[in-house]
Amino acid sequence: MFGITPSARLRPSPFYEATVADGVTAFTTYNHMLMPTSFGNPEAEYWRLMHGVSQWDVAVERQVELIGPDAGRLAQLLTARDLSRCVAGQGKYVPLCNHEGVLINDPILLKLADDHYWLSIADSNIWFWARAIAAERGLRVVVNEPDVSPLAVQGPKAEDVVASICGDWVRRLKYFWFRETLIEGIPVVVARSGWSKQGGFELYLRDGSAGTRLWNIVKEAGKSWDIGPGNPNFCERVETGLLSYGGDTDDRTNPYEVRLGKYIDLSVDDDVVGVKALRQIHAAGPSRHQLGVVLDGDAPTALGFLWHEIHVGGRKVGSMTNCVWSWRLKKNIGFALIETACQAGDRVTVIKDGTPVGAELTTLPFL
Amino acid sequence: MFGITPSARLRPSPFYEATVADGVTAFTTYNHMLMPTSFGNPEAEYWRLMHGVSQWDVAVERQVELIGPDAGRLAQLLTARDLSRCVAGQGKYVPLCNHEGVLINDPILLKLADDHYWLSIADSNIWFWARAIAAERGLRVVVNEPDVSPLAVQGPKAEDVVASICGDWVRRLKYFWFRETLIEGIPVVVARSGWSKQGGFELYLRDGSAGTRLWNIVKEAGKSWDIGPGNPNFCERVETGLLSYGGDTDDRTNPYEVRLGKYIDLSVDDDVVGVKALRQIHAAGPSRHQLGVVLDGDAPTALGFLWHEIHVGGRKVGSMTNCVWSWRLKKNIGFALIETACQAGDRVTVIKDGTPVGAELTTLPFL
Repeated sequence: MFGITPSARLRPSPFYEATVADGVTAFTTYNHMLMPTSFGNPEAEYWRLMHGVSQWDVAVERQVELIGPDAGRLAQLLTARDLSRCVAGQGKYVPLCNHEGVLINDPILLKLADDHYWLSIADSNIWFWARAIAAERGLRVVVNEPDVSPLAVQGPKAEDVVASICGDWVRRLKYFWFRETLIEGIPVVVARSGWSKQGGFELYLRDGSAGTRLWNIVKEAGKSWDIGPGNPNFCERVETGLLSYGGDTDDRTNPYEVRLGKYIDLSVDDDVVGVKALRQIHAAGPSRHQLGVVLDGDAPTALGFLWHEIHVGGRKVGSMTNCVWSWRLKKNIGFALIETACQAGDRVTVIKDGTPVGAELTTLPFL
Repeated sequence: MFGITPSARLRPSPFYEATVADGVTAFTTYNHMLMPTSFGNPEAEYWRLMHGVSQWDVAVERQVELIGPDAGRLAQLLTARDLSRCVAGQGKYVPLCNHEGVLINDPILLKLADDHYWLSIADSNIWFWARAIAAERGLRVVVNEPDVSPLAVQGPKAEDVVASICGDWVRRLKYFWFRETLIEGIPVVVARSGWSKQGGFELYLRDGSAGTRLWNIVKEAGKSWDIGPGNPNFCERVETGLLSYGGDTDDRTNPYEVRLGKYIDLSVDDDVVGVKALRQIHAAGPSRHQLGVVLDGDAPTALGFLWHEIHVGGRKVGSMTNCVWSWRLKKNIGFALIETACQAGDRVTVIKDGTPVGAELTTLPFL
């Protein structure tokens, strides 16, 4: 593993000092910020998420704030998911596409009020994009990056921890719904959300100067449940089929290729960016789809930077977009972005770091 | 220094394997790629750039390709620098602004033909931006990311090295001008360019599969001049006043604040994105400007992730946006983005990692 050189282009999170104090050993970069990727024991961090509770610095999930009389109009123009019945306090997963129907982000939209939205974004620049659309269409809306930084509490015991901090009302929050509140005077939005399938919450810190304090409140409250530091877990997210925008997608991926078709409403207004292209793509059928891949063999693989080519009969038919050792399946698994002619059950060859490895295609999720 | 975790969101460069073979020890991320930042001896790398010749993997300077009948029109809409007299084979430094006149990138534009341009970008997503403007305005232009990856050869002996590879015609290339050619059959664009003030060239590799081969051709040719691996040099770029977009700028920085006013032509068409806002900013005068800062004391400082607050009389008047030990000045130096009332010669206090440090403002560049 190589070192990462400090630079003002890579902003630290409000939780940076707390995670350093708790022993972070590695980072990735995401939205021009550092995100912890390890506290030194990946397997222990995985099992803690599966059976206990883990707290994560996910401040890199930045908010694109839309505020003003046309905020709702802009939100709808940016996604082909119908938002007409979304109410204040509700969140929705909204694929964003460009004019060609290519996926450019897959944020959670939070509707705070009729004139106030956040897009809690994946790793691409949606401030530029939203400002371009708003300005070119003359909308009365300001697009900002507010001082908002999520801290995730994830795992089967997360609800107990967050209820002990905020009260039992959090147990009644529906998935992706949220409420604005205070934690020991610190302004937060509490949402049932998070980038795992093990359940939990995200505490959207609204005062960057209180990062260490909020981190330590959660750490202290979680002691009864043996909480520990963690981060979005590569193994768990692959096992459970969670998409990583920019990792599992390329610059021509459309939502239908990566299992997001159910979040697209083709009946939205023609003005919605990309909807005309999406109608054509839907009518023609996508040329690629996303499946699981299970590699032969049982030696854990190392993580890599590259997509791995997938071959059938010596011909490239797609790519393996991630590859990780599954502690539950005891196999190296990952996602394929592959020609639709290839189906679950098919045998394929993955070119892994120059070496052909036998593999089988499967449905997603794995678990 | 912390480790960086491999991820498909961070694409390796075509020169990645060659730089690993040559002993790279640290990276930064830039345009979702890894860029080498050290080969283990920063001071030796600095003096090699000053007195000899150095080869750099700057593939992270990605190209935003504009191609089609409206490519020239789109190029002009994206920048308030007048391009009407730019000819094929010429490059220009072009600040890009949003509709509010805020700087969003500062690429080198290369005009390959009337219907074919590249923007060799700094660290922000201009593909999304250019596609949004093109699509919203109905232009007949395709915006792509081509397979193009610059390798820089920098330093006073760079011309000898590149001439030994390409021929003496490179000695007659004017600054930012370029020519398309082949190096041992590998397609490249050779430009007199590079992110240092020590002179040199950028070889824009047009075949990503030939990265290791091109790297080694330069390495071999450069042996007579004692070439070695390096990277954009933080010390040299601060000494010579080179701007780092995203490092020295924030989300409200306009070109006039950071010494780029000379690249703005306010007489361009009203349709040019941001020009109306730039006219207002110019008429009112910017509220901040960029100066140098020299810290008191002579102990080399460590690099950091943060901007440092600058205070006068206990009041925050700006920020020190970078801070590095200058091997020539034997001082810690950096840039200030600061109220225009503050001037070169003024004494200020820099809050460096929580500690107040005396400092003096200066003009830029330092050297």
